[in-house]
Amino acid sequence: MSFRQRHLLGIEPLSPQEILTILDLADRYVDLNRRTVKRTDALAGLTQINMFFENSTRTQSSFELAGKRLGADVMNMSMQTSSVKKGETLIDTALTLNAMHPDLLVVRHPNSGAVNLLASKVECAVLNAGDGRHEHPTQALLDALTIRRKKGRIQRLTVAICGDIAHSRVARSNLILLGKMENRIRLIGPPTLMPAGFKEFGAEVYEDMNEGLKDADVVMMLRLQKERMDGGFIPSEREYYHRYGLDAAKLSHAKPDAIVMHPGPMNRGVEIDGEIADDINRSVIQEQVEMGVAVRMACMDLLAQNLRAERGRALNGETYA
Amino acid sequence: MSFRQRHLLGIEPLSPQEILTILDLADRYVDLNRRTVKRTDALAGLTQINMFFENSTRTQSSFELAGKRLGADVMNMSMQTSSVKKGETLIDTALTLNAMHPDLLVVRHPNSGAVNLLASKVECAVLNAGDGRHEHPTQALLDALTIRRKKGRIQRLTVAICGDIAHSRVARSNLILLGKMENRIRLIGPPTLMPAGFKEFGAEVYEDMNEGLKDADVVMMLRLQKERMDGGFIPSEREYYHRYGLDAAKLSHAKPDAIVMHPGPMNRGVEIDGEIADDINRSVIQEQVEMGVAVRMACMDLLAQNLRAERGRALNGETYA
Amino acid sequence: MSFRQRHLLGIEPLSPQEILTILDLADRYVDLNRRTVKRTDALAGLTQINMFFENSTRTQSSFELAGKRLGADVMNMSMQTSSVKKGETLIDTALTLNAMHPDLLVVRHPNSGAVNLLASKVECAVLNAGDGRHEHPTQALLDALTIRRKKGRIQRLTVAICGDIAHSRVARSNLILLGKMENRIRLIGPPTLMPAGFKEFGAEVYEDMNEGLKDADVVMMLRLQKERMDGGFIPSEREYYHRYGLDAAKLSHAKPDAIVMHPGPMNRGVEIDGEIADDINRSVIQEQVEMGVAVRMACMDLLAQNLRAERGRALNGETYA
Repeated sequence: MSFRQRHLLGIEPLSPQEILTILDLADRYVDLNRRTVKRTDALAGLTQINMFFENSTRTQSSFELAGKRLGADVMNMSMQTSSVKKGETLIDTALTLNAMHPDLLVVRHPNSGAVNLLASKVECAVLNAGDGRHEHPTQALLDALTIRRKKGRIQRLTVAICGDIAHSRVARSNLILLGKMENRIRLIGPPTLMPAGFKEFGAEVYEDMNEGLKDADVVMMLRLQKERMDGGFIPSEREYYHRYGLDAAKLSHAKPDAIVMHPGPMNRGVEIDGEIADDINRSVIQEQVEMGVAVRMACMDLLAQNLRAERGRALNGETYA
Repeated sequence: MSFRQRHLLGIEPLSPQEILTILDLADRYVDLNRRTVKRTDALAGLTQINMFFENSTRTQSSFELAGKRLGADVMNMSMQTSSVKKGETLIDTALTLNAMHPDLLVVRHPNSGAVNLLASKVECAVLNAGDGRHEHPTQALLDALTIRRKKGRIQRLTVAICGDIAHSRVARSNLILLGKMENRIRLIGPPTLMPAGFKEFGAEVYEDMNEGLKDADVVMMLRLQKERMDGGFIPSEREYYHRYGLDAAKLSHAKPDAIVMHPGPMNRGVEIDGEIADDINRSVIQEQVEMGVAVRMACMDLLAQNLRAERGRALNGETYA
Repeated sequence: MSFRQRHLLGIEPLSPQEILTILDLADRYVDLNRRTVKRTDALAGLTQINMFFENSTRTQSSFELAGKRLGADVMNMSMQTSSVKKGETLIDTALTLNAMHPDLLVVRHPNSGAVNLLASKVECAVLNAGDGRHEHPTQALLDALTIRRKKGRIQRLTVAICGDIAHSRVARSNLILLGKMENRIRLIGPPTLMPAGFKEFGAEVYEDMNEGLKDADVVMMLRLQKERMDGGFIPSEREYYHRYGLDAAKLSHAKPDAIVMHPGPMNRGVEIDGEIADDINRSVIQEQVEMGVAVRMACMDLLAQNLRAERGRALNGETYA
């Protein structure tokens, strides 16, 4: 099989072929999910633990449903109210968890790199559900699946990512994935919300929405991450909407069949006009959520296959040692 | 089958025959629950999501147990700490959820009508677990089941509903159900807690407990909903107990074999005397909780049957189209 | 079978033979947990409810995993946000819960004796997951299992329990268990954190770590329970570490092969030096967590066997009565 990862910590370590392997398997899970009976037993007998150090009902639910539909035993650990408060270090939390023998560990953490640190301390497969401003790989994968199903391909497209780029791990993971798949990427946003370092990924940077959206195939709006703008510049919502909110006038610069995306939850009238969000000919926002469950099923299925294979080898090694 | 609903949004849309269908099936689930091994597979492969925008450990647990005992995958979404806080509208939350393809959605919401709005936006079966002052249908159904098992019938009884009628969706759903089944209903409470509109349901209204309880077969006490009395009249607990708390003296006016009910959680010494609450010859308060699980199993089983039938028709339609 | 308990409320009621029965079964579950597929069906069809009136992600997760790996339907009730706040008494909560027909009830409560009270009101098997300063039986059992696996026996060992004895139900349960198994027990700590009553269990009391640790086989460190020191003496962390924190110098007084234990979560640099905690030749702290799941599986399995047997007898009794 062409998927050789032990963990899913980011898009960065994935090859284009591995990305396509995930998308192909996810496609099959989309169909499965649309039927009445959805269970498979790909994860039967395995334990999935969701460890969210940052609240996210939406992402956690998506991972929980994905695991349950694959037959896993799923356990949620709400880490805001846990031993973290009792002064335990992240590494001790990791070691404690590891001793309970989970198989799949889904982690969201406010600090960039925290999930990688955790993964280095445990024996199970770790999935990054978002860490600081670093990566959010399943979001980029579900976006890619949505694009591929709507556009028929995930290569050679012009994709505009718009808004609060600086605080967005969603933007970062998408940028890496779309770059690996050889798309043309444009970043649009106010200079205060645009990090310098992103040019190295080969993206073009725009300050003006109309220019940046010109002939785009895909318009990817971002959430204003006010919760992460500690002390920095916070734009007024009205001014922001005027310049960077997606409305019909701005969207008219993109291709006539351009699709509109948003990772949710949306601030209607701030990042996006409500009518565009609801336009089923343009907006694929609900499809993104649907693809989210399928992509997470595919990722966990592939990681579990590698885990079982590794354990099989270890067991044989022990037997003949 | 005589149960044709797609959702369970209230007692209002149900026919008397549909109510009896639920009660008959629930009766069978009571027996099942009293044995050691309780699982059936009526909901196997289906996903139940509990979405509580208002806290209720008791009701949520009852729905969760009901779903698990029918073999569903059950997921709780605590909506107080969720994307609601991030500014997402109820409709966006509904659409997001719908895209995850749940089969059964159990919703509690502080606003009357919110559950109906949600149901109009999703493709799954929705169960109302209480919305504002509107309806709480499974509570009325579990009350009806409790009454029928104790009294042998759910028709032609004199039922007194006592206390804080104005803020009570429990009272409202019971009033509708008991009216449909042709019982004589009396509402007893202080004028400040008695809405004018309830007379239209054919209930008699009393201000005095002794008069109202006279010859009643069933005495249904309500919880003082202090959390919903924003700004309005709040009676002192002592004065309230003196006039409207159920004690032996007041209860002596009801029939000698009258049963005493309370939806819980109880305020002992405010709505009801502790000794009466614990009197196993009069109080059926624990039976109400027990019937709650069985009624919820029955409702979800019936809705799932309709859902599967509808999907089967849709699938055939697609095949031959 | 040599395990005759209906509940697991503490170590106090257990015979030495019953303790060994639990440890023997837990040993088998350790092996099971270390393999890929972990499910058994010992609790299939049974409902386990975790009722935590005090937060503990670690202990609750351990019980939840244990139940799920035995095939139980597991439901968590977070009682901090529940009807307790609405003024319901503990007994009413117990009766309500009982009416939902759980099979296994795992309870943590801040008040000593609260779990015993609850157990007296319900028909299911109750497991004490820690009540006030009273008992925490599964912690003592997992400690015993860890010791037996490392030392080859759980008898005739010198065990030093160090630190905040006064506020520790962990210390209390361990003291009882180790005493029943005929070990030599030393309690070490400042007089302000040392209750007088513990001498009756036959323990020797030390104020000086070096003296108390002399020739110990097992060094059991405790957590500083600052959250329980309301109004009393709170030592400065630095002073405490200097006198009672386990470092290499103090540990050198114990036997060369002495093992180091801590129930977690650890305060590194307060109760224990980080390097000692991480020394895999001395510290068995991760093993304790691992044994926790296995011991809880064993306890629930044994209680469920007794529950099924009791129900079988009741059923036969009814049939021939």
